[in-house]
Amino acid sequence: MLARYQLFYWPGIQGRGEFVRLALEDAGAAYDHVARGSGGIDKMMAMMKGKSGNLGEKRPPFAPPFLKSGRLVIAQVANILFYLGPRLKLSPRDEASRLWLHQLQLTVTDFVKEVHDTHHPIATGLYYDDQKPEAKQYAQSFLKERVPKYLGYFEKVLEKSGGPFVLGRKATYIDLSMFQLIEGLRYAFPTAMRRIERKVPKVVDVRDRVAKRKGIKAYLASDRRIAFNEDGIFRCYPELDE
Amino acid sequence: MLARYQLFYWPGIQGRGEFVRLALEDAGAAYDHVARGSGGIDKMMAMMKGKSGNLGEKRPPFAPPFLKSGRLVIAQVANILFYLGPRLKLSPRDEASRLWLHQLQLTVTDFVKEVHDTHHPIATGLYYDDQKPEAKQYAQSFLKERVPKYLGYFEKVLEKSGGPFVLGRKATYIDLSMFQLIEGLRYAFPTAMRRIERKVPKVVDVRDRVAKRKGIKAYLASDRRIAFNEDGIFRCYPELDE
Repeated sequence: MLARYQLFYWPGIQGRGEFVRLALEDAGAAYDHVARGSGGIDKMMAMMKGKSGNLGEKRPPFAPPFLKSGRLVIAQVANILFYLGPRLKLSPRDEASRLWLHQLQLTVTDFVKEVHDTHHPIATGLYYDDQKPEAKQYAQSFLKERVPKYLGYFEKVLEKSGGPFVLGRKATYIDLSMFQLIEGLRYAFPTAMRRIERKVPKVVDVRDRVAKRKGIKAYLASDRRIAFNEDGIFRCYPELDE
Repeated sequence: MLARYQLFYWPGIQGRGEFVRLALEDAGAAYDHVARGSGGIDKMMAMMKGKSGNLGEKRPPFAPPFLKSGRLVIAQVANILFYLGPRLKLSPRDEASRLWLHQLQLTVTDFVKEVHDTHHPIATGLYYDDQKPEAKQYAQSFLKERVPKYLGYFEKVLEKSGGPFVLGRKATYIDLSMFQLIEGLRYAFPTAMRRIERKVPKVVDVRDRVAKRKGIKAYLASDRRIAFNEDGIFRCYPELDE
């Protein structure tokens, strides 16, 4: 029997949790999305306070998402994927390749933080409405410089690996993250992305291949995939687009 | 013989590279700081462009710091420390503890990015002088909410582990990062830190213990330790302090 994983994340958004969910769904792994169930948010908060009565007691996560696998509680998206990779057959097994894959995923982490800051450049604790002019300024250089830089980097990595996937012939969890990045950026910045995508055809091709994978296709068609919305990381505020 | 590591990072600052250097220095590992040598910056840039003629060719890093260890090139501070940890005896060896340690280090990564953004909230590509009012706004909620939240989290982890080090009885690389965080924050925000440190005595005690370690003490007294300055992550702009 497949291990049953427990994923802890905010119930109403894709957010950072989605990068983990895509891996679990692609692999057809059995998992519960705890905070979507009754009393789930209380359970999640108890884990973070170290008051859940299990290993989370001694090693509380700083923030969601986190994954419970047996007695282990693992937080930080890239760390969770590093752990899940070989178990879900979404990662090579040799140390050098695992570190390389993890390094790429950590670059995605950095990118995602910058995506988040397009609508929250001044403070996470303030509303978007309280930092709109700053968000506009931030988004301008984000779209002009940062998105082309990050996606251009992954395009170069694809050239060097020979593709069609980021690490080469076989898909790994970083490809699922490429899918999510392109989907999210298209939702948030459709105009800018039409321009930027022309420069990164290999990355876009990864997105297309991932969208056709059996587990992902089923997931996207299910009601488990929450739609993008303005509480998540990728938000559609037309005034921030080009 | 100990392996000789090659560390690639900008020559004039502590920056993110310092978290790796502290581990190498604490362990007394042999390493070259390549970009501080003649022609070193060119070498570093060639590695990033994938034009160095070694493994970096196929797997170029997105940004410094990165470490060359034999044929392996590893980027992202937390990834480098994950790799070095067992080799420098600064990490437990069992998988669960390594993942936990890594998770904590990734929380440091997030924190360090927020420190950076206190002087660059709008765009990394602009000067601080071009984003001063926004930086002031950012720094206010950073000092009021984020620093107490992050340091308070590590204080809680220390309570739960029983200390005196973050993982318990033995020092690991996360303790070196605690040292660097406290040092850097004291440099950048001396007034705010006097207030905040009173709430996190266990974290401050980790800093004091690390400062007395043989390798660290020798390093801090050497000219290899670059002083904090206003090109690095932690910058002393008095107008941003409380």
